[in-house]
Amino acid sequence: MPSPFLAAARGEPHDTVPVWFMRQAGRSLPEYRAIRGEGSILDAIHQPEVAAEITLQPVRRYGVDAAILFSDIVVPVAAIGFGVDVAPGTGPVVETPFSSAADLDRLRPLEPEADTGYVLDTVRAVVGELDVPLIGFAGAPFTVASYLIEGRPSRTYGKTKALMLGDPVLFGELLDRLAHMAADSITSQVQAGASAFQLFDSWAGALSPAHYERFVLPHSRTVFERCGELGVPGIHFGVNTGELLGSMAAAGPDVVGVDWRTPLSMARGRVPEGIALQGNLDPAACLAPWPAVEAEVRAVLADNAGHPGHIFNLGHGVTPDLDPGVLEQVVDLVHAEGEVRSP
Amino acid sequence: MPSPFLAAARGEPHDTVPVWFMRQAGRSLPEYRAIRGEGSILDAIHQPEVAAEITLQPVRRYGVDAAILFSDIVVPVAAIGFGVDVAPGTGPVVETPFSSAADLDRLRPLEPEADTGYVLDTVRAVVGELDVPLIGFAGAPFTVASYLIEGRPSRTYGKTKALMLGDPVLFGELLDRLAHMAADSITSQVQAGASAFQLFDSWAGALSPAHYERFVLPHSRTVFERCGELGVPGIHFGVNTGELLGSMAAAGPDVVGVDWRTPLSMARGRVPEGIALQGNLDPAACLAPWPAVEAEVRAVLADNAGHPGHIFNLGHGVTPDLDPGVLEQVVDLVHAEGEVRSP
Repeated sequence: MPSPFLAAARGEPHDTVPVWFMRQAGRSLPEYRAIRGEGSILDAIHQPEVAAEITLQPVRRYGVDAAILFSDIVVPVAAIGFGVDVAPGTGPVVETPFSSAADLDRLRPLEPEADTGYVLDTVRAVVGELDVPLIGFAGAPFTVASYLIEGRPSRTYGKTKALMLGDPVLFGELLDRLAHMAADSITSQVQAGASAFQLFDSWAGALSPAHYERFVLPHSRTVFERCGELGVPGIHFGVNTGELLGSMAAAGPDVVGVDWRTPLSMARGRVPEGIALQGNLDPAACLAPWPAVEAEVRAVLADNAGHPGHIFNLGHGVTPDLDPGVLEQVVDLVHAEGEVRSP
Repeated sequence: MPSPFLAAARGEPHDTVPVWFMRQAGRSLPEYRAIRGEGSILDAIHQPEVAAEITLQPVRRYGVDAAILFSDIVVPVAAIGFGVDVAPGTGPVVETPFSSAADLDRLRPLEPEADTGYVLDTVRAVVGELDVPLIGFAGAPFTVASYLIEGRPSRTYGKTKALMLGDPVLFGELLDRLAHMAADSITSQVQAGASAFQLFDSWAGALSPAHYERFVLPHSRTVFERCGELGVPGIHFGVNTGELLGSMAAAGPDVVGVDWRTPLSMARGRVPEGIALQGNLDPAACLAPWPAVEAEVRAVLADNAGHPGHIFNLGHGVTPDLDPGVLEQVVDLVHAEGEVRSP
């Protein structure tokens, strides 16, 4: 049977709305916590057997229509030795943040097999076990740059914006290197067996449309242009991106992720016809009692109105406090009620 | 001379774009740090002489077109004994968060003179010294409720949304009480001498439009309806509210605050004619070198294109790392270049 996930990504006919969840593999699953010790997530990613098992867990439990590789957007920059770790409870931290042209020398090109062979081993192990597509991914140039510049998660991205506006040439060189790193990483994942990819520009929504278009879009476009040759669909995702959806579509993806702040019906008017949408259940809404969650799921489906270019997902990742039982019910409901009209 | 701030709020003729900054009174000013000790901001707010001086400091330094009362949106709920403090470096924390109907009993009506007489003493002291309008303010029902329910600042508002969706009746009763508390507080501030008010719904942008309209808008409307009788302009502000601007305008303010994610020219199309806009320079952009900041200020003015209903401001509050010298230059530039066409 053809994959409804791949069909929806291309707006092609299929029977039922496909569904997967960002961060479906992770902290909300007891079977994940059982095999992950303490310590950095990067340790688990380095072990293909562990990472493959974690990737498969949510597919088994939820019956989602796609798996997403268990990895992290900072893996490539960590792998080339930039000095990045993922601190439990905090997120990515950088020992010596990016601050000047000299730091460009710390960003050599990624050699995927040599630097991140363990990731590709995970991909190869997973695709042998899966009967749904595997989504590979990379961090988008802006979001990875924000971690490298800030040195840790930020609410304001002040250092990032100061560099972006104050030294646009250096900022552009940084993003160009990160764009090629993302494209190299995605290419290697697809060559190892991934059937689609997502470019996570999670924090692009911190930018005004003018800044996004001038400083970020050209580099995200580089990623999609290079990955367009791979022949698999690409998804472009961020949060708080209501005003950026058209620009994010212009970068060249097949699918644009939408958070819950922008109704899908409104998002349709901001992207060209032929671009599919992914989203957009509020993950925090899943903490409510089931009847309320059910109403929210139905509202997302109703808002999409059977458009064939729709992949059901949360508007952002699964949070650790989410009950996996609720997500199981969400998948069942989407599969039962998610009708697709003819393209 | 009539106040350009008040004229712009009403879309009436005036010569130059008025400007003030959210959180202009506070941590970025050395003269503020000089008179504030360690400890909770609530301690300083309790001392009218200190709070009045802090309110006046940015007016003296920047020459802004309005003062905003030095206070905090949790002052009323703290004053009636809900058990709220503002922890330095964290923000509002609640000892026993709101979780059930029994907690409604902890939310008696505010008696402004008895409960927050020190705030009104500050207002009275300040207006005697000022030659620009004083803006009073309150926290909007949703944003204050989010602090009471979460118990501390949140990124996801999961508990708040779970209660909102799971027990909408209780959530509505909570917001109704907070709406009247906000209206009572604003009314007392205006009666003591404030010439305008701002309702801070800082975190409303975490909600989808459908949730905002159903669960929040009726209560924010209560505040503006009650305060409409005061005869002073009201401003309605939040961040990440691009999709909510029309609904926030429908609550009844004279002015809607816009963050930097939504260009003013785009925001105009989402609110009715006659509603003024406030914003929307990205505060993080102010960390860039001056020529870049200057270009950003000019871009905001150009985007507004001389519309008389514009109050220049940041898109969110001044952050502690901002250089006051840069904000001085911003004020001078807005005053020099901010031309207003006839209404």
